[in-house]
Amino acid sequence: RINEQRLWDTLMEMGEIGGTEKGGCNRLAGTDLDKQSRDIFVAWCKACGCEISIDKIGNIFARRPGLNNDLPAVGTGSHLDTQPTGGKFDGVFGVLSGVEVLRTLHENNIETPTPMEFSVWTNEEGSRFQPAMQGSGTYVGRFDLETELNKTDVNGIRLGDELARIGYLGDMELGSRNMGAFFEAHIEQGPILEDEKKAIGIVRLGQGIRWYNIEVVGRPSHSGTTPMHLRKDAMLAAAAIVTEMKAIADRHENGLGTVGFMQVWPNSRNTIPGNVKFSADLRNPRPDVLLTMHEELLAFAEKIAEEHGLDVNIDPFWYFAPVEFNASDDVKAATEKLGYSHMDIYAGAGHDACYMADLVPTGMIFTPCLNGISHNEAEYSSPEECAAGANVLLHTMLEASER
Amino acid sequence: RINEQRLWDTLMEMGEIGGTEKGGCNRLAGTDLDKQSRDIFVAWCKACGCEISIDKIGNIFARRPGLNNDLPAVGTGSHLDTQPTGGKFDGVFGVLSGVEVLRTLHENNIETPTPMEFSVWTNEEGSRFQPAMQGSGTYVGRFDLETELNKTDVNGIRLGDELARIGYLGDMELGSRNMGAFFEAHIEQGPILEDEKKAIGIVRLGQGIRWYNIEVVGRPSHSGTTPMHLRKDAMLAAAAIVTEMKAIADRHENGLGTVGFMQVWPNSRNTIPGNVKFSADLRNPRPDVLLTMHEELLAFAEKIAEEHGLDVNIDPFWYFAPVEFNASDDVKAATEKLGYSHMDIYAGAGHDACYMADLVPTGMIFTPCLNGISHNEAEYSSPEECAAGANVLLHTMLEASER
Ligand SMILES: NC(=O)NCCC(=O)O
Ligand SMILES: NC(=O)NCCC(=O)O
Repeated sequence: RINEQRLWDTLMEMGEIGGTEKGGCNRLAGTDLDKQSRDIFVAWCKACGCEISIDKIGNIFARRPGLNNDLPAVGTGSHLDTQPTGGKFDGVFGVLSGVEVLRTLHENNIETPTPMEFSVWTNEEGSRFQPAMQGSGTYVGRFDLETELNKTDVNGIRLGDELARIGYLGDMELGSRNMGAFFEAHIEQGPILEDEKKAIGIVRLGQGIRWYNIEVVGRPSHSGTTPMHLRKDAMLAAAAIVTEMKAIADRHENGLGTVGFMQVWPNSRNTIPGNVKFSADLRNPRPDVLLTMHEELLAFAEKIAEEHGLDVNIDPFWYFAPVEFNASDDVKAATEKLGYSHMDIYAGAGHDACYMADLVPTGMIFTPCLNGISHNEAEYSSPEECAAGANVLLHTMLEASER
Repeated sequence: RINEQRLWDTLMEMGEIGGTEKGGCNRLAGTDLDKQSRDIFVAWCKACGCEISIDKIGNIFARRPGLNNDLPAVGTGSHLDTQPTGGKFDGVFGVLSGVEVLRTLHENNIETPTPMEFSVWTNEEGSRFQPAMQGSGTYVGRFDLETELNKTDVNGIRLGDELARIGYLGDMELGSRNMGAFFEAHIEQGPILEDEKKAIGIVRLGQGIRWYNIEVVGRPSHSGTTPMHLRKDAMLAAAAIVTEMKAIADRHENGLGTVGFMQVWPNSRNTIPGNVKFSADLRNPRPDVLLTMHEELLAFAEKIAEEHGLDVNIDPFWYFAPVEFNASDDVKAATEKLGYSHMDIYAGAGHDACYMADLVPTGMIFTPCLNGISHNEAEYSSPEECAAGANVLLHTMLEASER
């Protein structure tokens, strides 16, 4: 069993890096705070005898040797970056459950048949740079390395430059770790486990995600002198699409639609907006339904462009197809062995494990979070809930190493 | 008659300060560029023998002595600040028509019965600081000086500090100029004069304006895990209000409704917006209709707050009541004397003359602009159109000085 208090203290210590007044965390990918959180992770792993490697997109791998170091390692990991209004658990809980597993093995001098590997993936959140799960997606070969390093934030700063600046642009080849399985513990980020009073969610599926950059190009003109019928108001067209995003979601079972990001130009009260850039995020566990939602969005954008006499440019720059986790039964076996209540569940958010499933047998362990709230400073999981997840991770990894 | 070529050259010279690639101008109030444009105006007026005064909100007055300097001056003026995507004419044309009048009087050694006064008003645009017509409104006593100097831009920078920094925070008392009448030349900024093929618009009325700061306070949460019916999505509520602004405008004759400014927080693609701040601008020439529009907006906001289960805070921080110009007949007389085609018109935009009408008999002279486009880098008036306006200004001022 892992040490509940130590896991909790470690979570709280990490939460101070970028900690907010309201008890949340603001630690965007590639910032100085990201560096601090990575540095302390590296220090903790080294203290337990791990060897550290950094790959070309800044993912960190800490390896604890096993009895036979030619065997593929059993891996775990998640991310340390957060949303601008994130909590202390999203991602961080997965990384620090790994650290807790490592410490438990280390202090008990447990020798595992295979090496064990603890990882931190670059920019999982997709908040400062897009898409999400950028580090794991690039590692497994879904994204092109150069393209991703060249991605810029809203201020035009390159991811590659930020990684170099904070000392985490490594030279290890992508996809080159000798790993035989991967498990990620994560808070659910939704309300289901709490509602159903279950300690552990056995994650069977990661739902599909489609991300868009949308740009409406109208014509800036005077708010006091331009008759309504002569306007090409980019804001008005954008608002219509925002409203339709909800309608699309509501038309489909389990459909979700969100506009989280918007930039208005010239953003002056008495100038009709000439240009509005915004994001769109559509999700569904079924790929066919998600495709229909996608087509509905494209068709609506075209209709709006025509009706408003302006341009609507849509760039559907990221499609994450739903993924099935093929090592879920390992998670279930460990959960039952430990006697925790559990249920099958699907992941609403994307996770690094979703991409790792491309390469190796992969499973995810969900734990409840208060009121299902995440991407919010109020995000919370209790010490016992966290401990349950870390215990399941420990035993899942031990079992996988034995085989 | 004024010198058409000189007026044009002066407009083009001023347009280089903050000039944009697309031929427009970006010269926000209180910036270094604002300072440059003020400095050159002051230099031009001094070269024609004017004495310069700066008041406590940064308005500039350049006085040319008359035969009897105890008589109240005949004034003209407008603004040199522009929108972020402004043109070379909005405001600037009025100021430089004044400079052209001054130069015409000076080079012909014309002695006027009363002094003549040429002014530049602080922050007429209301883009960087709110409200619009801030300098003239404060001068005539509509706004409180300290409140206005404490107004901040989106980065929290105070107007008062910016005026001090650029050397235009004067010590002259507000409202203290000895002025007997005020005339402002301005491009129409709308399509009517061009459509009707008239050289001059005799402005009879400035329409009413209501400005609002609206804040929607929802709850940030995860775009992938929060079911649609459990969301408090500030963006969705804001979009509904944006859409309703057009509906309100369309329900009323001559109604206008615009959302030009929006800020989203935390502005991350996979976080449902927790907070959206935006502007609203409602206009109508009839105060009763504008009041109805106002009430419709408030009622709709309340309804949205209830339907979406979140807070909608509306601050109706500026009401500009429609104003009638009582010296319009002086403008008409000068226009007819000079033989220009003309028509009566109302102003869709607010102007410094609208506030000066509180203190003295006031008139406005409109000139056509290409396709009615303003607050756009493509804003354009021809040299002849500008010259006609400046000639009318010259003769209106001369007539007023004679009386
Ligand atoms: N776990 C998590 O919040 N990931 C962010 C990626 C997404 O689902 O948008
Ligand atoms: N002339 C002009 O564009 N004024 C700006 C104030 C407004 O009408 O919004």
